[in-house]
Amino acid sequence: MGRVTERRRVLRIRDGVAGHRADTLVAEEPMEIRLNGRPLAITMRTPGDDFALATGFLVSEGVLAAAGDVANVVYCAGATDDGRNTYNVVDVTLAAGVPVPDITLERNVYTSSSCGLCGKASLDAVRTATRMPAGDPRLPLLTPELLAALPDRLRAAQAVFDRTGGLHAAALFTGEGELLDVREDVGRHNAVDKLVGRALREGLLPLHDRILVVSGRASFELVQKAVMAGIPVLAAVSAPSSLAVDLAAESGLTLVGFLRGSSMNVYAGAERFALASEQAH
Amino acid sequence: MGRVTERRRVLRIRDGVAGHRADTLVAEEPMEIRLNGRPLAITMRTPGDDFALATGFLVSEGVLAAAGDVANVVYCAGATDDGRNTYNVVDVTLAAGVPVPDITLERNVYTSSSCGLCGKASLDAVRTATRMPAGDPRLPLLTPELLAALPDRLRAAQAVFDRTGGLHAAALFTGEGELLDVREDVGRHNAVDKLVGRALREGLLPLHDRILVVSGRASFELVQKAVMAGIPVLAAVSAPSSLAVDLAAESGLTLVGFLRGSSMNVYAGAERFALASEQAH
Repeated sequence: MGRVTERRRVLRIRDGVAGHRADTLVAEEPMEIRLNGRPLAITMRTPGDDFALATGFLVSEGVLAAAGDVANVVYCAGATDDGRNTYNVVDVTLAAGVPVPDITLERNVYTSSSCGLCGKASLDAVRTATRMPAGDPRLPLLTPELLAALPDRLRAAQAVFDRTGGLHAAALFTGEGELLDVREDVGRHNAVDKLVGRALREGLLPLHDRILVVSGRASFELVQKAVMAGIPVLAAVSAPSSLAVDLAAESGLTLVGFLRGSSMNVYAGAERFALASEQAH
Repeated sequence: MGRVTERRRVLRIRDGVAGHRADTLVAEEPMEIRLNGRPLAITMRTPGDDFALATGFLVSEGVLAAAGDVANVVYCAGATDDGRNTYNVVDVTLAAGVPVPDITLERNVYTSSSCGLCGKASLDAVRTATRMPAGDPRLPLLTPELLAALPDRLRAAQAVFDRTGGLHAAALFTGEGELLDVREDVGRHNAVDKLVGRALREGLLPLHDRILVVSGRASFELVQKAVMAGIPVLAAVSAPSSLAVDLAAESGLTLVGFLRGSSMNVYAGAERFALASEQAH
């Protein structure tokens, strides 16, 4: 549990000179997510916040929407021959009255992909999710200056990246730019699930007054996770994909990419920005 | 088909000044892989080389090992209401006599994860795969100089990245450092599957005399794909995970990380290196 990093002996070569030393690696282990005892998905993740990862994943899947939807979360006995708990299998039991999704083979194909909900059925599922509110009184209009300051705050809060260089990060900020929570993981999607799962537990969903910042690229999957958690603004340090932009535009999400220094590209939802000047082109 | 990039209108903000312009995005679309007509997995991918992606994925799954194992690969009619082909569903038909894997729900959980084979059963499956040959006469001993030259060659061959900044790349090199093939995709795992699928079609598997270079990090999944394709050397520009290192060491794969300039870390399989000097530490 909580093996966020591991040490390994490595042969380091610098300018042709080789020497052994210890190196810190980011831990990666498979985690199986079960729902009411039935296997639902497996994700490669960095151990830690496993319960939040499981519940946050289920928010993205549309299964959970509030803390009260969860009756119990436990580590199951793992699959080792001697029955030892690997802490790599997490079972979420739904509260009475919460609809259990139909886990058919087809459904399973969609959900167990770590790339998130895919395929037409799933695209439609996301598209029919509640649109982002046009304006939440608690989320002020965005300014370029506010957003430009967020990546540095995210980076400063990354504890493990500096030691391993191997982690993606995701963070939640207030509309004023205050960092509320940051998670690191080998998978960007896991980092976001962990944020959402922690917010779920604290009764904070939907996150209508929050800004989500991710360290890398913005995929369809990350937009989908933001939408399902009710987050109105997703800002990525690197490039978005075409499908990420399309889903953001359809869902009313503000999607910012290439957030670097004082520069950024707004791919969707520019109406949430307060801009001093705009040059039509 | 082949929509590698797409254009979108974007609001670009530079130092507080905003203006609209056209932006080139990397295309991302779901692709469903079917085996003998049955859905097996869905991956978010950049369109292009879809047949190679499907067959390369099946090499990673241990289903295919040679070009003759494939009877046919076709685009199925997609799921649009009017029956139009979306070119997002690919069906691979196995040749007569090739064992069809048992696609149970449990099996499906493992295979359909785009993070690759996970879980104990799958870890064991990879571990029991043929170990890398200790020495292939066609693969010369590695030198730091040779490896150090590869990332620049990979980058020079990346056609789409410069336009979008949103693509991972993977390339196959000879033991002498000659670039043979490079693929780009929103998913690193897809880029590797495409390389392997193309090599499969050309009758080149197992790739015992090849070096695989990837643009980013080295996950468990990438090591697994290299092992299943018989590739003895995997070099990544960025960090490996703990499980990637463990699987490489168990499988006899040479795993190099942080390959930057004249520096690199060798995490497993250092015996394939010809080193002028070594300082034990």
